[in-house]
Amino acid sequence: MFPDLAPLFDPRSLVLIGASDRPASIGQRALSNIVEHSRYTGELFLVNATKDSVMGRRAYRSVLDLPYAPEAAIVVVPAAAAVGVLADCGRLGVKFAIVLTSGFGETGEAGRQLEEQMRAIVRETGIRIYGPNCPGMTNNNRGLGFTFSPAFQYDRLPGPIGLVTQGGGLGRTFLQASGRGVGIGLWCSSGNEVDLTASDYINHMVGMPEIKVIVTLLEGINDAPRFAAAALNAARQGKPIVALKVGKSAYGVKATQSHTAALSGSADVNSAAFRQLGIIEVDDIDELIDTAALLARGIPARPVRTALYSFSGGTVALAADMLGSAGLTLAEFDPGTREALAGLLPSYAAIDNPVDTTAEILVQSDISYGSLLCVARDPNVDVVLYPIPMEYGDTTLAACRNLVKVQGEIGIPIVPVWMSDKLGTGYQCLVDAGMTPVRTLGKSIKALSKWNGYGIASRAFDRHWTPSIMSRPAPPASAPAPRTFIEHDAKQLLSQAGIAAPFGRLCRSPEEALEAAAQCGGPVVAKIVSAQILHKSDIGAVIVGLRTPQEVREAWELIMANSRQACPQAIIDGILIEQMITQRGVETLVGVHEDALFGHVMTFGLGGVYVEVFKDVSRRLLPLTPADARQMIEETRCHQLLKGCRGQPAVDIAALERLLLAVSDFVTQGPHDVKELDLNPVLVSTEGAIALDAVLIAAGR
Amino acid sequence: MFPDLAPLFDPRSLVLIGASDRPASIGQRALSNIVEHSRYTGELFLVNATKDSVMGRRAYRSVLDLPYAPEAAIVVVPAAAAVGVLADCGRLGVKFAIVLTSGFGETGEAGRQLEEQMRAIVRETGIRIYGPNCPGMTNNNRGLGFTFSPAFQYDRLPGPIGLVTQGGGLGRTFLQASGRGVGIGLWCSSGNEVDLTASDYINHMVGMPEIKVIVTLLEGINDAPRFAAAALNAARQGKPIVALKVGKSAYGVKATQSHTAALSGSADVNSAAFRQLGIIEVDDIDELIDTAALLARGIPARPVRTALYSFSGGTVALAADMLGSAGLTLAEFDPGTREALAGLLPSYAAIDNPVDTTAEILVQSDISYGSLLCVARDPNVDVVLYPIPMEYGDTTLAACRNLVKVQGEIGIPIVPVWMSDKLGTGYQCLVDAGMTPVRTLGKSIKALSKWNGYGIASRAFDRHWTPSIMSRPAPPASAPAPRTFIEHDAKQLLSQAGIAAPFGRLCRSPEEALEAAAQCGGPVVAKIVSAQILHKSDIGAVIVGLRTPQEVREAWELIMANSRQACPQAIIDGILIEQMITQRGVETLVGVHEDALFGHVMTFGLGGVYVEVFKDVSRRLLPLTPADARQMIEETRCHQLLKGCRGQPAVDIAALERLLLAVSDFVTQGPHDVKELDLNPVLVSTEGAIALDAVLIAAGR
Repeated sequence: MFPDLAPLFDPRSLVLIGASDRPASIGQRALSNIVEHSRYTGELFLVNATKDSVMGRRAYRSVLDLPYAPEAAIVVVPAAAAVGVLADCGRLGVKFAIVLTSGFGETGEAGRQLEEQMRAIVRETGIRIYGPNCPGMTNNNRGLGFTFSPAFQYDRLPGPIGLVTQGGGLGRTFLQASGRGVGIGLWCSSGNEVDLTASDYINHMVGMPEIKVIVTLLEGINDAPRFAAAALNAARQGKPIVALKVGKSAYGVKATQSHTAALSGSADVNSAAFRQLGIIEVDDIDELIDTAALLARGIPARPVRTALYSFSGGTVALAADMLGSAGLTLAEFDPGTREALAGLLPSYAAIDNPVDTTAEILVQSDISYGSLLCVARDPNVDVVLYPIPMEYGDTTLAACRNLVKVQGEIGIPIVPVWMSDKLGTGYQCLVDAGMTPVRTLGKSIKALSKWNGYGIASRAFDRHWTPSIMSRPAPPASAPAPRTFIEHDAKQLLSQAGIAAPFGRLCRSPEEALEAAAQCGGPVVAKIVSAQILHKSDIGAVIVGLRTPQEVREAWELIMANSRQACPQAIIDGILIEQMITQRGVETLVGVHEDALFGHVMTFGLGGVYVEVFKDVSRRLLPLTPADARQMIEETRCHQLLKGCRGQPAVDIAALERLLLAVSDFVTQGPHDVKELDLNPVLVSTEGAIALDAVLIAAGR
Repeated sequence: MFPDLAPLFDPRSLVLIGASDRPASIGQRALSNIVEHSRYTGELFLVNATKDSVMGRRAYRSVLDLPYAPEAAIVVVPAAAAVGVLADCGRLGVKFAIVLTSGFGETGEAGRQLEEQMRAIVRETGIRIYGPNCPGMTNNNRGLGFTFSPAFQYDRLPGPIGLVTQGGGLGRTFLQASGRGVGIGLWCSSGNEVDLTASDYINHMVGMPEIKVIVTLLEGINDAPRFAAAALNAARQGKPIVALKVGKSAYGVKATQSHTAALSGSADVNSAAFRQLGIIEVDDIDELIDTAALLARGIPARPVRTALYSFSGGTVALAADMLGSAGLTLAEFDPGTREALAGLLPSYAAIDNPVDTTAEILVQSDISYGSLLCVARDPNVDVVLYPIPMEYGDTTLAACRNLVKVQGEIGIPIVPVWMSDKLGTGYQCLVDAGMTPVRTLGKSIKALSKWNGYGIASRAFDRHWTPSIMSRPAPPASAPAPRTFIEHDAKQLLSQAGIAAPFGRLCRSPEEALEAAAQCGGPVVAKIVSAQILHKSDIGAVIVGLRTPQEVREAWELIMANSRQACPQAIIDGILIEQMITQRGVETLVGVHEDALFGHVMTFGLGGVYVEVFKDVSRRLLPLTPADARQMIEETRCHQLLKGCRGQPAVDIAALERLLLAVSDFVTQGPHDVKELDLNPVLVSTEGAIALDAVLIAAGR
């Protein structure tokens, strides 16, 4: 499914097409980045349509004149010429072309046609295209920059982080995290993604041992099944992916579309999908950096117990407050730690977690070292958060030096937080040691929270799960159009699939209704059956609690009259006479819809009128695992109702879990290609879970 | 209510008690801060118990030896000696004493006794005490530092922000915001607050014309009525207060108590109180800085319309996304602006809001100036957010210079966001111009959101409102103990206060019950009446829908049996026979409780079992204004149910508002000193709002 990108990231031979010596031109900058700022040792060819030499090097007029096909090409000629050049490259046998040029799909219809031609070249020749409309590729771990960016030479700290972006600007922001001490080993910017996409680069980085964490910043996802495959590959190998996805609000969706023309998708579904795919989602660039830097230092092996350590009481109090609000755990110190701290620190220090050493450690450097080491060595501590609230020159420098020294002697991470807007030698000491100081208390807590969350999720990760979108065949061209099933038919299909629904019969006459009511053997419900009538209750086309033949007959007349009045055009199939479920319970909803990117998504939550008011729902891509079914229920607030509260008994949650799994099977393995399924309400009682209403829109497979 | 603190902040004469020339001692540092680093021009006396001269200046052995009483004293002698010194100061007529020494209440019982003695001196002599256990007072706008902090000399940028903290460390963090270009004009740290409190300093700053914004960082509030008075003073004068309150989680409450021994209060009630008092609450130190710096530049006069402007498409897309998620508004440009931008920027730039100039403006400095000016002058723009995603040396410097230049020519604020971890000359240019660049996109959006929120709240502020805690008399020593009213009595009291409740009678026998049911004239409810039985429904002691004498008689027996079984010890007053309210509606809850800090607080929300599940409630200090009543309802999600959804009619929200106001009047002006009042449910229907159940705990006034 994924190509081997090694020759792209570290080619043995290379051609720069559009090489130039005109100062500040894209061709000159790209050339200068290769020959002056890269440690490129392979063969380099230059192509210039009008010159025989560029910057003192031989230039060819065409790719076709080269003595052999280089592994990779960098293309910087204008958009109009690029297609021809790519065709030549493909014909010659070049494996990869990095197209830096802009002026394609992002500019309109003519550009989109050029992209179509590029895709045809890929199909016909097997060349793979990176870009276009991107700043190129920066491989700091190999010292290679295939980019026109004049900033390449400045932001080149190697490191354990692989970065995948679509555009360039925010990627550069991230690269400059080197200013905090964390290096980006490899940066790919996928641009317009005419061929290779962010998913390809992510997947390749999963296989790179020197990359410990993959970070991605996405405006759109153009190939959800491949994206899912790359993410699952990472999750199975325990390599974290941290993602920031633009498109959470209408303004964002619109701005993204005008910037990259990429499909944004539903933010809720994206978040659910990311979680199931093992991806950590964050909300801002700095959070990407904080989280990735912490994950690069190790992955927690158990739920994280944090030690808070600082020389300011107010600071540790605020940090403890935030830690608690985030649901994180303060470590319980070993008695030996408290004893040792009591021996080291002044009597007015706080020697329990959180530790307030008081400013004494700023005066006595050895106490600063000893007390921190003692906290960091406590067997009950998984991470030390060390907020430094101010810059005090040499004093804070000494504290930071001790921090770095202790970090060198222990295995767990110490996370420094440099809270002041004044930077100084202490800050620089942390940066130089690669400690990546977080810049605010709140963000440090957020990073710890994501770090802890990744550990928990990765330990629970189901290695065998794949989303249905990865295996679902494209519908045949001759597939019948989807249709809306009448309630009775839908319920029969669901019953066959093991999803409980009340016994019922579709009746065409009052006489059939009387017979059906007798079969039900208790109070019945009567409902209009018509594909055109959706909100049946709202128009008085549902009547409950019918006990006598007389009541059934009257209900028949009333429902027919109400339906004809409210929907005169509706085709009426009859009236469904159904066993009335009288046990008390919690009304929930179970729904499945098709997301444009990620395919079938299940929604579970509190049903009835509260759906719209509280939006108390959880979501999962299908198929559901048993753990998903359990967690979907536990994530909602209505879980408290299901567990029983205020004197109500707990309902049969296990039956609800089975129902969710049966719905998942019905959708992913059943006889129908489901477009939409809504079970609302699903009544969950002490006696089980039963779908009281059902809407199904589906095609045959 | 508040003392005039002018002599404290800028004294004409001063004595330093405990002046020393021992290097790095607190007495030496305090002296050096006055004579070497302050611009203090008044008379300075030194007192040292054992020396006649300190640092070449005459020293007195005792305050009592001074030729006259100076306006202020700075006390740095050890805790044990401080009380005697303060008594001398008080006797002599010193107006204010700043006690920097530690070792008081924060260390235990002995220290608390010293504090009691200090309070006695205040009462007896009229001296006012600042501290103890604090780093002192920094008045950068006057160039004065009455503090032992060696950092005083480094963090002295004057400015429009007044800062009030309790401890010292986080105050220093805030002071170092000068590293981002914003100056703190005056910083008070109130320490243990034996006499003067944060409220006094806040109130004084309200009256200082050079202070435009007050920032406070609170661990506890020791004098809620005075705090409220100071905040209302600020709100009435349109001077913003931005606050960070520690104590949102159990860890925070515990850490705060061990740090300052201050009462933390309920985080929910604090937040509600802050809002009503016109205080802007934020969650982290950097947010205090960002928000205060923006408010210091002006207060929005209308709902804010933001222009987004940058040279990176991905960056403005992400910013727009966040802006939308925060519920803020993108400005609609005037057609003239778009035209002008089209003339200035390249064809592939985005000239609509958000503006992506493309990197072209980094190359052509005049375009950078012209296009930004054009956006900032658009009549539909109230603020320009200008994210700078990376440091590009001279290129970003030129862009920042243009930003500062344009800011000099226009009235609305331009908010720069320096997103990179590399700082450079461009960043420094913004800092030097006092632009206080925000450091992350998300935080800039948060600051805009708080800025906009303050404008909206201050325009709607009710100048005449004061919380009941400011006017409520202390209960007389002879006040009767509060008691729990039986439901029937509570409802009668409420009815008299204009709060609707169903007609009902407390019955002592089945015969009385039959008579009462007949009086009700329709179906009735029967409920046990006992002060000892709280959750009546849960034990089967409430039966509804009784229509016949036979049903009433059976219900009597059953309720009595259930009650005796569930609560054998309960004293049973009888059974309440009450008119059954049959109309459909929304079950809400209305409650009042007494908060330890802020007094009577009303809670409104969705009632029944959903209270505990969704916690869908809003809160207000009493008394309620009509606007409060309306907003309390609108803030909850159940407002959607009240307005009518899914075919249900809108209920009588006006009646609910009247009920909330009547409850407020009953509690604040009624005949009882209410400790707790719970109306749950209050049924709101198309016919009105009626309290179906009532629990009242109160004492007579």
